[in-house]
Amino acid sequence: MSAPAFVVSLLTDYGLDDGFAGALHGVLHRRAPGVQVVDISHGVRRQDVRAGSQALRRAAPYLAPGAVVAVVDPGVGTERRGVAVAAGDVVFVGPDNGLIPPAADALGGASETVVLEDRGYWLAAPGPTFAGRDVFAPAAAVLARGGGLADLGAPVSPGDLVRLAPPACRRNGAGGLEVEVTWVDHFGNVQLAATPADLGAGSSEVELRWQTATLKLRVVRTFAELAPGELGLLTDSYGQLAMCSNGASAAASSGLGEQDVVELRP
Amino acid sequence: MSAPAFVVSLLTDYGLDDGFAGALHGVLHRRAPGVQVVDISHGVRRQDVRAGSQALRRAAPYLAPGAVVAVVDPGVGTERRGVAVAAGDVVFVGPDNGLIPPAADALGGASETVVLEDRGYWLAAPGPTFAGRDVFAPAAAVLARGGGLADLGAPVSPGDLVRLAPPACRRNGAGGLEVEVTWVDHFGNVQLAATPADLGAGSSEVELRWQTATLKLRVVRTFAELAPGELGLLTDSYGQLAMCSNGASAAASSGLGEQDVVELRP
Amino acid sequence: MSAPAFVVSLLTDYGLDDGFAGALHGVLHRRAPGVQVVDISHGVRRQDVRAGSQALRRAAPYLAPGAVVAVVDPGVGTERRGVAVAAGDVVFVGPDNGLIPPAADALGGASETVVLEDRGYWLAAPGPTFAGRDVFAPAAAVLARGGGLADLGAPVSPGDLVRLAPPACRRNGAGGLEVEVTWVDHFGNVQLAATPADLGAGSSEVELRWQTATLKLRVVRTFAELAPGELGLLTDSYGQLAMCSNGASAAASSGLGEQDVVELRP
Repeated sequence: MSAPAFVVSLLTDYGLDDGFAGALHGVLHRRAPGVQVVDISHGVRRQDVRAGSQALRRAAPYLAPGAVVAVVDPGVGTERRGVAVAAGDVVFVGPDNGLIPPAADALGGASETVVLEDRGYWLAAPGPTFAGRDVFAPAAAVLARGGGLADLGAPVSPGDLVRLAPPACRRNGAGGLEVEVTWVDHFGNVQLAATPADLGAGSSEVELRWQTATLKLRVVRTFAELAPGELGLLTDSYGQLAMCSNGASAAASSGLGEQDVVELRP
Repeated sequence: MSAPAFVVSLLTDYGLDDGFAGALHGVLHRRAPGVQVVDISHGVRRQDVRAGSQALRRAAPYLAPGAVVAVVDPGVGTERRGVAVAAGDVVFVGPDNGLIPPAADALGGASETVVLEDRGYWLAAPGPTFAGRDVFAPAAAVLARGGGLADLGAPVSPGDLVRLAPPACRRNGAGGLEVEVTWVDHFGNVQLAATPADLGAGSSEVELRWQTATLKLRVVRTFAELAPGELGLLTDSYGQLAMCSNGASAAASSGLGEQDVVELRP
Repeated sequence: MSAPAFVVSLLTDYGLDDGFAGALHGVLHRRAPGVQVVDISHGVRRQDVRAGSQALRRAAPYLAPGAVVAVVDPGVGTERRGVAVAAGDVVFVGPDNGLIPPAADALGGASETVVLEDRGYWLAAPGPTFAGRDVFAPAAAVLARGGGLADLGAPVSPGDLVRLAPPACRRNGAGGLEVEVTWVDHFGNVQLAATPADLGAGSSEVELRWQTATLKLRVVRTFAELAPGELGLLTDSYGQLAMCSNGASAAASSGLGEQDVVELRP
């Protein structure tokens, strides 16, 4: 039985309808009886590794101690490696395709990394297309039962991990800040790849330019400070700037979506 | 480690895609190692406090003993208070905006209420927009670790809690019963704010009037008693009258939606 | 308190928004404090017993030891029986409408079957339309607390269980294999009711005929072997043949859906 404080958290693009996430739970309980399992989200956009890496980075400070199975994996079954990456008090387990490093960075950087090459703990499977069930969950179960990274495979340098380009956040010549939309959430809040520090102190209003539109956004602390229909800018619960609205979707009002790039001017 | 029988149940409008619910799980496990967490639903319609209060009331008799973090919170970060409300063998934790009282009433009424004002257990956060993660889940973790309501803040009278108007259920001059639609479920059943006792005993057929339509509804016990396409009325699994169909959606057939008001005549 | 290794897994068509699944969790924790509960899926298509039986069969080899509450139940409240069916190291609990037998078969067949007729463990309920909460979850809780099938009701022969017709997989006169689409998953993979053994060894290309279309499908091991837009055939993670695509939905590309029948030719 696993130690009571060891939790396996899951973040994938599997959706919830097909039983893929349920299969991970089953394998974990079968291999590590008594383990506790948390679903962070199975709603990452299908095969969007970049969106998954941002979701995992946001989740990082709030993860329960233990292992984190993270799977957005269009290259499943190919030469891309599976890895386990220790950072803070968690171990991320998943494909080496860029998904994990931003979250590991958010926890102070990878302290140890191994390649998942010891097939002893893998599940026998009729095909190589479900590594979450057949490789990553079994690897997490090894850790849940008290194993270490050395039980999973040989060490590699964290510097060898595949990394994606970070979301855009750059000053342009005109005194503006060009920033990427990193996330549109369930409420239509539009998170940007910039923090209040990037913007500079003390603005009470900010101009947001996108395509042909120029929006004046009042800087607020809470949604309720905005009038109905008004768009504003606040520091969201992850410390990022976000365009928001009061009781409506800022994304729907503005037309902005993930990966769009806007210009901010104080 | 929490006592094995202490469960933290969650009901929110967060959706499942963004990791908001997962963050609550993470905080609970981090603050109260070994705690058990149940998702009642994260599918309350966005920012619809009234719908959330009805969902929480329906869930009340079937809650596991422990704490219940309930969040539908358009006023997050403003002057609206956070509260913990003990009723039956659970403690509801959430905003004081009307969400909690109907569920507390269903469990015999609030026995103790405190305001969540002791910031010692709050999470440090970059902004005030995610009270579920930063205030309510940490408060539930205090309880999961054996704390009491006095560890969360100062007592207030349950009578001071904000309350919403209950769903309409009133007799009209013409001998009919005007009742509100309280819920359309996943199967298209249309729950009404009336019980068989409100309707009077012994009807085998009921007339439902809405806008220009008059529907004759056979009173049945099970869906399978209805012919394909036939609309009927039964006592649902929560003891409320509900319009239903056999293998189809009564809501889609009738056009009725939540908060519509219909007239019933025996 | 239940043994730490006893898990109750859930598979239903309840959806996640209404709190139906949450009510099952609540009842299980209330009746069997400390029990562990896993959601396999609550996304079976509404009232589609056949799709549910296929989903349960796919889940079977990966179930945690314990009980499995399986509910897709359009005949709820009628004469259809509730049953508990032991197979492998799990006990399936649900309606006797064809949902359970394929999964029991996948685990070596039912070793013991009882009818859920002892009302002592049922929950009192205002109506008979939520057997998952009022009958099946309480039955699973009896098992979680160490009870046996004899505590649930009287034995019946597994041969008496209702069975649905299996998905079509038959040779036709023209040397082709007529196979049914058993599943379209979240990624658009199109699972067929045939295995590589049904197709015969060694093909590197297969012809798939459907309506007026004839598709040449390259046989591959991983999605990444296919060119963008190319449709292929692989052995999926459940050992079945599946039409797939690389980074796109094979179902959307082909127009195929569940229960369609196609012809395969080596």
